[in-house]
Amino acid sequence: MRTGDSVAALKRAFLDNLFYTQGRYLEVAKPNDLYQALAHTLRDHLLHRWVSTVQTYAKENARTVCYLSAEYLPGPHLANNLLNLGITENVRLALAELGLDLASIIEREEDPGLGNGGLGRLAACFMDSLATLQIPAMSYGIRYEYGIFDQLIRDGWQVETTDTWLHYGNPWEVRRPNIVYEVGIGGRSERYTDAHGQMRVRWTPHETFRGVAHDTPILGYGVNTVNLLRLWAAEAAESFDFQAFNQGDYVGAVMRQVRSETISKVLYPNDEADMGKRLRLLQQYFFVSCSLQDMLRIYKSTGQPLANFHLKYAAQLNDTHPTIAIAELMRLLVDVHLMAWDTAWEITRKTFAYTNHTLLPEALEKWPLPLFESVLPRHLEIIYTINSHFMDDMRLRYPFDQDRIARLSLIDESGPRYVRMANLACVGSHAINGVAELHSRLLADTVLKDFYDIWPEKFQNKTNGVTPRRFIMLSNPGLADLLTETLGEGW
Amino acid sequence: MRTGDSVAALKRAFLDNLFYTQGRYLEVAKPNDLYQALAHTLRDHLLHRWVSTVQTYAKENARTVCYLSAEYLPGPHLANNLLNLGITENVRLALAELGLDLASIIEREEDPGLGNGGLGRLAACFMDSLATLQIPAMSYGIRYEYGIFDQLIRDGWQVETTDTWLHYGNPWEVRRPNIVYEVGIGGRSERYTDAHGQMRVRWTPHETFRGVAHDTPILGYGVNTVNLLRLWAAEAAESFDFQAFNQGDYVGAVMRQVRSETISKVLYPNDEADMGKRLRLLQQYFFVSCSLQDMLRIYKSTGQPLANFHLKYAAQLNDTHPTIAIAELMRLLVDVHLMAWDTAWEITRKTFAYTNHTLLPEALEKWPLPLFESVLPRHLEIIYTINSHFMDDMRLRYPFDQDRIARLSLIDESGPRYVRMANLACVGSHAINGVAELHSRLLADTVLKDFYDIWPEKFQNKTNGVTPRRFIMLSNPGLADLLTETLGEGW
Repeated sequence: MRTGDSVAALKRAFLDNLFYTQGRYLEVAKPNDLYQALAHTLRDHLLHRWVSTVQTYAKENARTVCYLSAEYLPGPHLANNLLNLGITENVRLALAELGLDLASIIEREEDPGLGNGGLGRLAACFMDSLATLQIPAMSYGIRYEYGIFDQLIRDGWQVETTDTWLHYGNPWEVRRPNIVYEVGIGGRSERYTDAHGQMRVRWTPHETFRGVAHDTPILGYGVNTVNLLRLWAAEAAESFDFQAFNQGDYVGAVMRQVRSETISKVLYPNDEADMGKRLRLLQQYFFVSCSLQDMLRIYKSTGQPLANFHLKYAAQLNDTHPTIAIAELMRLLVDVHLMAWDTAWEITRKTFAYTNHTLLPEALEKWPLPLFESVLPRHLEIIYTINSHFMDDMRLRYPFDQDRIARLSLIDESGPRYVRMANLACVGSHAINGVAELHSRLLADTVLKDFYDIWPEKFQNKTNGVTPRRFIMLSNPGLADLLTETLGEGW
Repeated sequence: MRTGDSVAALKRAFLDNLFYTQGRYLEVAKPNDLYQALAHTLRDHLLHRWVSTVQTYAKENARTVCYLSAEYLPGPHLANNLLNLGITENVRLALAELGLDLASIIEREEDPGLGNGGLGRLAACFMDSLATLQIPAMSYGIRYEYGIFDQLIRDGWQVETTDTWLHYGNPWEVRRPNIVYEVGIGGRSERYTDAHGQMRVRWTPHETFRGVAHDTPILGYGVNTVNLLRLWAAEAAESFDFQAFNQGDYVGAVMRQVRSETISKVLYPNDEADMGKRLRLLQQYFFVSCSLQDMLRIYKSTGQPLANFHLKYAAQLNDTHPTIAIAELMRLLVDVHLMAWDTAWEITRKTFAYTNHTLLPEALEKWPLPLFESVLPRHLEIIYTINSHFMDDMRLRYPFDQDRIARLSLIDESGPRYVRMANLACVGSHAINGVAELHSRLLADTVLKDFYDIWPEKFQNKTNGVTPRRFIMLSNPGLADLLTETLGEGW
């Protein structure tokens, strides 16, 4: 009833949404009310397709691609969804009958600036393509409350102003308060022997916060498939023991908890000096931990054995930002699900693949060891264990090449010690790719040469597939028509 | 279409809302999804009445009661709105046809714990009565993200845990991103001479944040009148100059701005020691400033002259918490709207009335002068000026009674200096009431005796009118029926 495609149905749905979601009627509606009403009208269309997509995937029990990326630049949703739904013209007519102009309503949207540039745009293009190709996919990331800054130039210098993209509300997302995971940091880990005489490790974090899922449907072009972009927002986790120390200071206790929310507050600009940025490490761990817990929950709900996890999930690491996921999956499998180390390691390697974005050795993330240890003590132990197995193998392979072994190590010990995330990504993934033919070749020749020498079969290329459809259709409808006439619908 | 009262229409509306607001269908819906869907169904009914109420009030151009209260305890909305809409039975039947139980859905609601006790409940009862009596009213307050703590008892001691009432979403409120006001604090004020040779004051705050309106419709019983509860949430205000000092540290700049949000984070428990709580003073000023700016905007949009403001607005101060409103209205009229002091003072006194809640002199709020001055330097000047006029009058009236004059002063100078908010409330209001016959009499005899001696005509009583309807109807429907049978509908 709410999702007819005719001009009359769209007009009715638009007015209803204006009234019932915004509490406004046409005569007093502000521009943002009009935008929200139209966005909700399209969202109603998306929800239908989303629900049936979920049902289809569940029936097919296909392997799901989980794309882990700290950044997404999907661009404005309204025009893109109009295009993909194929109802731009009818919506334009429906609004015109109400004396409204579609173009100026489209202008109202705050671009979700959840990325710095190419890396985030690549992630968004993959989402678009995966939905269009009807491949089951889930994109995981962070719901930054403040995205990439708005740039002003003043006296010839850049001035950054805050990007408050959520101020007017985000009609495209559905908050999922029931999909919540706890994420710990700090504290200590200790060994214990379980009931079966097995040695186990228990991590007791110093502080716990939680991530809440916010889902945005991503519609493919000309198909009914809707995949999900699931972004995590950080919030305070109620900790009883913590509170017990704060009797009589409720306000103080709340404020200390509220600090948790800062984790998903702001996207780091590309050029901020990374080293020592504890918050950035927290962001990375926060979103991959929530995402992996989510995948495991969904997988387990199908009743399949955990040992087959990698048959149903492929996790793509978009650059090194989500690489801590490798240690986190090991922790979840070994410490929480009590799996044997070797089985867990096999599953982990078969689950992950790594996309490299840079040839600059200094741009490969590495974390000062003391910082890393204070935030993720258990993960450091896991990385040490992975490294110890890896180093043993390498010493057998290169018994006389100490330099090479030092370069391969997950720990940089050439000066102050660091954890090398790119090395962890190479060791813990079954596939490694660059984003252009030349880039992939240079990767194997330069920054990742040592790893290429060991595992040439892991290396491949995936040229950045940008989706030109929206750009051409919106900027040059005439050219788009000509292309369709000449090439057919499939370009 | 969405707001039929029949069982069939309610069932349809419930399922539609489940699908379109939550993206769920019945088979996979979680308890919170069911609650949200039902709440949205009722909200659709409320919005209709709300829009027509606004239109009626605008036509009648009646005087509006603005209730200023730092606390509201409305209780759960769902059952109350069912009752007031008179559709409880049909909703129960509609849900039963879907195999659902109304009572357990009602149980899901998080009680909005925006108050400590009697004072907040009184405010909510007034909202209920004003809507039922169809009196135009707007209730203003703070949208605390964390309400009054949840109490646990452990080893015989109270332990406070955080009240995260917004976690599952609040279907009753409509965020109004276009209704935003800036609120400054700190800084300095300076005199200047305007184009007409008039001496004026300009306040340049050190820091600015903003309040965003969140509106909850409050429906009367058995009528179609819906009044509004408008709560303010604090957020960062974009300040260009501020940003300019943060080139290259975007994350740091955002985090400093984000501190603004803490203003509306948490409700102070009654028994926290108030003195020195800068945040509490900020909360009070924040919400009354937004509220007064809102009243002035609405009033000015009617095109009536500012000098008649008090003829269209009555502002009730619920306890001393909102008393800073008296100085703020003076500031807005004199500094911003360039009105003469005496005219502004007359309007201010005719606008405000003050409800006292306590006989304990130590519970009457007073702020250490250095704290007050650092937060609200311009308001302190205004209070000095009000006090100077008032003290002049009092010295004429009581030329030989220095003690009495010292007690009446808005500034406590008996030791370290304080600003006395109850004294400001008495001087700046045209009416003062207690909340019970005995309380009002004792007020005039004890804590406010000095003011009663000057203005006996200001003093009156308004016995706390609690609304027993919901309590009796929900807890004892049989008794409710008997009362209706015996007394008619009007009890």
